[in-house]
Formats: sequence, C-alpha cells, structure tokens
Amino acid sequence: MLGRLLMFRISYPNGTKFKKIMQASIKLIEEIPLNVTTEGLTLRALSPDKNALVNLFIPSTSFEEFNVEEETNIVVIKDEFNKAVRRAQRKDSVILIYERGARELKVILFNAKTGVEREFSVSISEAGMEPVGEIKVEPVVKFQIDGDDLKKIITDAKIVADEIEFIYENERILVRAASEDRSYRTTLELDRPLLNLESAAEGRVSGKYSLDLLKGITTALGSAETLILGFGQNQPLRIYMELEGGGILTVWIAPRV
Amino acid sequence: MLGRLLMFRISYPNGTKFKKIMQASIKLIEEIPLNVTTEGLTLRALSPDKNALVNLFIPSTSFEEFNVEEETNIVVIKDEFNKAVRRAQRKDSVILIYERGARELKVILFNAKTGVEREFSVSISEAGMEPVGEIKVEPVVKFQIDGDDLKKIITDAKIVADEIEFIYENERILVRAASEDRSYRTTLELDRPLLNLESAAEGRVSGKYSLDLLKGITTALGSAETLILGFGQNQPLRIYMELEGGGILTVWIAPRV
Amino acid sequence: MLGRLLMFRISYPNGTKFKKIMQASIKLIEEIPLNVTTEGLTLRALSPDKNALVNLFIPSTSFEEFNVEEETNIVVIKDEFNKAVRRAQRKDSVILIYERGARELKVILFNAKTGVEREFSVSISEAGMEPVGEIKVEPVVKFQIDGDDLKKIITDAKIVADEIEFIYENERILVRAASEDRSYRTTLELDRPLLNLESAAEGRVSGKYSLDLLKGITTALGSAETLILGFGQNQPLRIYMELEGGGILTVWIAPRV
Repeated sequence: MLGRLLMFRISYPNGTKFKKIMQASIKLIEEIPLNVTTEGLTLRALSPDKNALVNLFIPSTSFEEFNVEEETNIVVIKDEFNKAVRRAQRKDSVILIYERGARELKVILFNAKTGVEREFSVSISEAGMEPVGEIKVEPVVKFQIDGDDLKKIITDAKIVADEIEFIYENERILVRAASEDRSYRTTLELDRPLLNLESAAEGRVSGKYSLDLLKGITTALGSAETLILGFGQNQPLRIYMELEGGGILTVWIAPRV
Repeated sequence: MLGRLLMFRISYPNGTKFKKIMQASIKLIEEIPLNVTTEGLTLRALSPDKNALVNLFIPSTSFEEFNVEEETNIVVIKDEFNKAVRRAQRKDSVILIYERGARELKVILFNAKTGVEREFSVSISEAGMEPVGEIKVEPVVKFQIDGDDLKKIITDAKIVADEIEFIYENERILVRAASEDRSYRTTLELDRPLLNLESAAEGRVSGKYSLDLLKGITTALGSAETLILGFGQNQPLRIYMELEGGGILTVWIAPRV
Repeated sequence: MLGRLLMFRISYPNGTKFKKIMQASIKLIEEIPLNVTTEGLTLRALSPDKNALVNLFIPSTSFEEFNVEEETNIVVIKDEFNKAVRRAQRKDSVILIYERGARELKVILFNAKTGVEREFSVSISEAGMEPVGEIKVEPVVKFQIDGDDLKKIITDAKIVADEIEFIYENERILVRAASEDRSYRTTLELDRPLLNLESAAEGRVSGKYSLDLLKGITTALGSAETLILGFGQNQPLRIYMELEGGGILTVWIAPRV
C-alpha cells in the first residue's frame, strides 16, 4: 500500500443497522455505485429494468469516523459487497477504506469489545463515473403507514395479481389488484391503518405499480419501520423512509398504464 | 350486484382457527365442494386417487353470523380459496358470501378492532351438484391418541416404508412398517401412549394403510389435537377429530391388501 | 432369533446427545464401521476422498448398559442408521443390539418414563473387517476455540475461497483465505478469541486446509462446544473435542499444498 493515497476511510458504528440499510438499498439493483463526499455517503442507482430508482443518503454525522480526502465515485460488485456486509454483527463497526487507484474496497468488521477484526476485500468494477440523476417530483397524494401493514397489503394483493392500484378519493385510499378471474380490494383511511393521509388534489387520483418491485423493497425493510408512500396520476410511486441512526432511503417505482 | 339474490353470508369468528380447519380438510383433496344449509357448512370430497374421503361439518352455531337463503352447493378452486383463507389472522372474522349465479365466492377478512376489511374473490368451478355420499362403517377397533404421538409414529414408519399396519390383539396395538430390508415396530397400549382403546371383536384384527395419506392429514393437523382412529379387517381407517369451537372432521383412508 | 448368539447389547442413556455425537461423527463419511469391545464403542472411517479421518470413541462407562460377548466389527448403512438415530429424543435410551450373523443392527429407542419402545432395523453391509488405522501425529501448534467462534471464521472465509490457511507467528494465528480477486483475513490471539494457544516450534508455522471439510464438521457440531485445533507445516489439521457425557471425537483433515 506504499505510496497509495487514502481516498476515504469511514466507520459506521452499528453492524446490524448498516447491514439492514444496505440490504434494503441494494435489493432492487444489480451494481452498487458509492459516492462519498464530506457530506456523507450516497448510493443512487436504477434497477436493471430501469423501473426503480434507489436513493440512499447517510450523512457523515451518522458515522463515528468520516475521513474523506476528496469526492470519490466507485462501483462495487454487489454479490461480494453484500456477502461481506452480511457478516456484520451488532457490536461490529463497519469500516470502509478506499485508496486511490485500488481495485478493491476494504470492508473491515471490527468488534471493539473483543478486539477481533475481520477484513474482506471487495472488487470494484468502475471508478470515477458520475452518479445517475435524482427524480424531482412532488407526489400529489401521500400516506404514512407501518411497514408491516404495507407488507400485509402487498402479500394479499400478490395472491391475485402482479400490479397494484392505489386510488385516492374522499379521504380514503382504495387498494385494488385484479387478474383475469380473481380480485382483491381493501380500503385505507386515517387510523385504519394509516398514520397520516394528505392530497394536494381535490378529486380522484390513481396510480398503478409493479407488485414485484414493491414486494422486493418492502420485504428487505425491517418490520418496525414507518414509511411514507406518495403517488399521483401517471406519476412514479415514492417510498420514503427515515433511517434510524440518521439518513434517508427513497425508492421510486415507475407508473404502469 | 344489482338484482342478485344472496344465497348465503356466513361469518366465522376466528381467522386462525378457520384457516387451520380448512388447511387440514383440503390437504388430501383437489377441489373444494361446499354445501351450505341452515344446519351448517359441509365439505365432503374424495382425494384424486379416491383412496381418501374427507368429511368436514361445522354447525351454524359455530358461526357468529349464518344467513342462508336456500341450500347451496358450490365447488371453489382450491388454490385460490387456500391462498385467501391462509391470509386470515386470529383477530379476523372470515366472511363467506355467495350470490345466486355468481362466478365467485367472496372471502372477506374483517378485523373488527382495527376496522380493516380485505376482500378476495375466489373462482367457482361448478354449482348445484350433489355432494358425494358418506361412508357408513363402524370401525371394529378404536383408539384415541394425541396428534403429536400419532405424528411421531408416522414419521418413524415413513423412514422404512410406504404403508403402515395396525394389528389389534390382547388389548394392545402393534404398529408395523416394513420394506425389503428395513423394518419398524412399536406397541401401543392404554396410557402408553393411548388415551383410550376398545375393540368390538375378540381376536386379532389388522388393517394396512397408505402412510402418505396418513402423513398428509396428520401434518396438516395442529399439534394439540386428540384423534380417534378406527380400523378393522379390510375396513377403511377412520380418523375422527372434534374441532375446537365446534364441528367434526372425519377422514377415511382405504385399506390396502 | 432362536439359536442366535448375542454379540452386543449396549444402551446409551440420552437420545439427544447420542444423536448429536453421531451426526457430527458421520457428517464426512459414507459408511459407518462400528467396533465394539469391552472398552467401548469406536467409529473410525475415512471420508470418500480420503482427505478426512473421523475417529470417535465412547467408553463403556458412558453407557448405562454395555454387554459385549466378543469384539465385533460391523459396517452399517449410513442413511438407514442416521434416519433411525435422528428420531431419538432426550428421554430416549438408544439401545443397539447385534446378533452373530444377523444382517441387521437393531436400534431401539426406549422412553423409560412412558414405556414406549420403538424398534428400527438397520442394514449391515459388511461384518468382521478390520478398522482403518489411526493417525499418530502430534500437532506443532495447538489452539483452543469456542465452536461458535470457529464457525464464524469458517463462514467468513467461505465467502471468498475454498481453502483456509492458518499461520502461526509471534504468539498469534493469522487466518487467511483468498481467491483470484477476493480475500479475507483475521488474527487470533489469546483471549481474542482463543482460550489457549501453544506452539512447539519457535518460528513461523503454516497449514492450508479444505474449507468444505472444515465447514462440514463444524456445522454438525453443537454450538456450545470447545474445540482444540492442531496443525503444523504440511501436517494434517486435527480437530479434537471432548464429548459431554464421556468420549472423544477427533477429525483429521489432510493438508493442501
């Protein structure tokens, strides 16, 4: 490593939390572009079919060590990164180290209590590219829901169909799914079981989305999370989650016609 | 639904219990004929190979709502019915609604506490046919056993063979299974572990039955159930269970020679 | 059974423990040679690729009944033996009975409390052959480690490679695994997390071993076990475990170059 310049060395204090955040974030994508600046760590990528955009941001303040020499963009191999991160335990700090020109990212799991340090090298497929752009849409209808309640709806709907429709009208959201000869429906209202519900429009607003993408992302999320979903007529669906420990995970899913 | 006559609307008060009863009842059969009269709900069907007959009866008194306009016979698609019922939870009432001439049965899971209602439509493949006949045989030997003890015997026996023999003699039941070069045997007596044992015959009585059918039905049963098994020389095996909450599930398995 | 001479009848008092010992012992081997003498029960066999030697000894004092007429060597069919033994529960005594010239070993699971006895016959493929020889090597480096800590290291290493290297130097063991573009490393010291560490050599000592064999044997072991691993330059790896209830399980794994 002589003569190599450190690009970043950052340490996240809770292995289980880091694992959970990462597993939810990478569920729908095939490669993992990491952008590290003095602001924090950003992971933004499209799913292979381009119907989902994942956007994770963890601010530098959520790390116990955040040492960045200059802005860095690298893409790591999903399978290798995932397998290493998955080995993290609650008491482990997860330390990511990258040196200029290196072909690998070092992932170190360090248990401060036992002093045991485990070091994995994870291959980098690309460096220096620009991250994909953000989506700038403000959803017309927004509702807040427990992750468990959303999972239940999605599992229900998946029994009968591959897409799900959200229809806002009269301060309620009708959820529908239907295939040739089967159907499912339920109605969501404030407190039944929504935690919040608002619409910027007066009348009826509806959007249809892929159940597989929704199922993928909600399955990867922990049980205890509260989510804010937003949608609109022909708009993408936005799933928004504030991360315990700091940071935001946003997933956009393209509308279906 | 205008102009459609309600044939029945019945509501079972405990989703978990209903799910459990149904999953045990439909395990061996491929289509689900439901007969609804003012007396109650009957499900009676042969397995595809005709070696098992399932007979479930839940009296109207076990339901919290039991509204029947006239006797109804419909056959619902097993996979669709099962997937909807499987989504029921303990706090859900399971409401079944059928309207004359409709091509579907409505399965509604209603949680009275949260007010959340989830509605599935389940396809009907046939309506108006007669149920299959009952079996009128009184078994010669009867023994009562915990479901868990029976499962243990069946799992033991399945290690060595595909059929199981029950032999009654001298107030004991010898259980045997054997294939070419492997064998299994155990002896059941009152309190070891039988809860009851009686025979209408003086001498030796034996019967041989398919382990796969027996395994199928006992696996689907809950752990805590007490079963009464009955058999006789060249007679079918009867598995009889009183359902918690009311009702009876009987399964007949054809004898082997 | 008239006229047949009993060769041995031995009874081990704890079904769960017997099952656990046997499942760990037979994990890497394909046939099960049992040697029974007045000293105890020995199971010693090579893995099919001859890269592992398993050596189990349970002294006669660990049995509640140990009746041996003369030294016996039989080979039982792994699948049949395993399936029968796997059915043992904690309260079961496991009774093994062999009669001269019999083509089967009787495995009886007897629950003294309920009086229930379950008898399996297990085929014998061979009788009278000599057991394979022992390995007489005293490892240069030895370290004691909790089974769980070893499993963690092996699972970590398996992410990146198929073999693992132990390198002793300066009172530490460096553990390394590497494939083309991925690597893993960690360092073991006394108390981090080793329970003991000793070397008969002054300088550096290293050995490389198959991760699949190591993973196979450690997965089969219970969680709470303490193991002593021993290795040396071009020496086989020895995994040594004292069994709760008496007896010793030793597994040797051939070195790789």
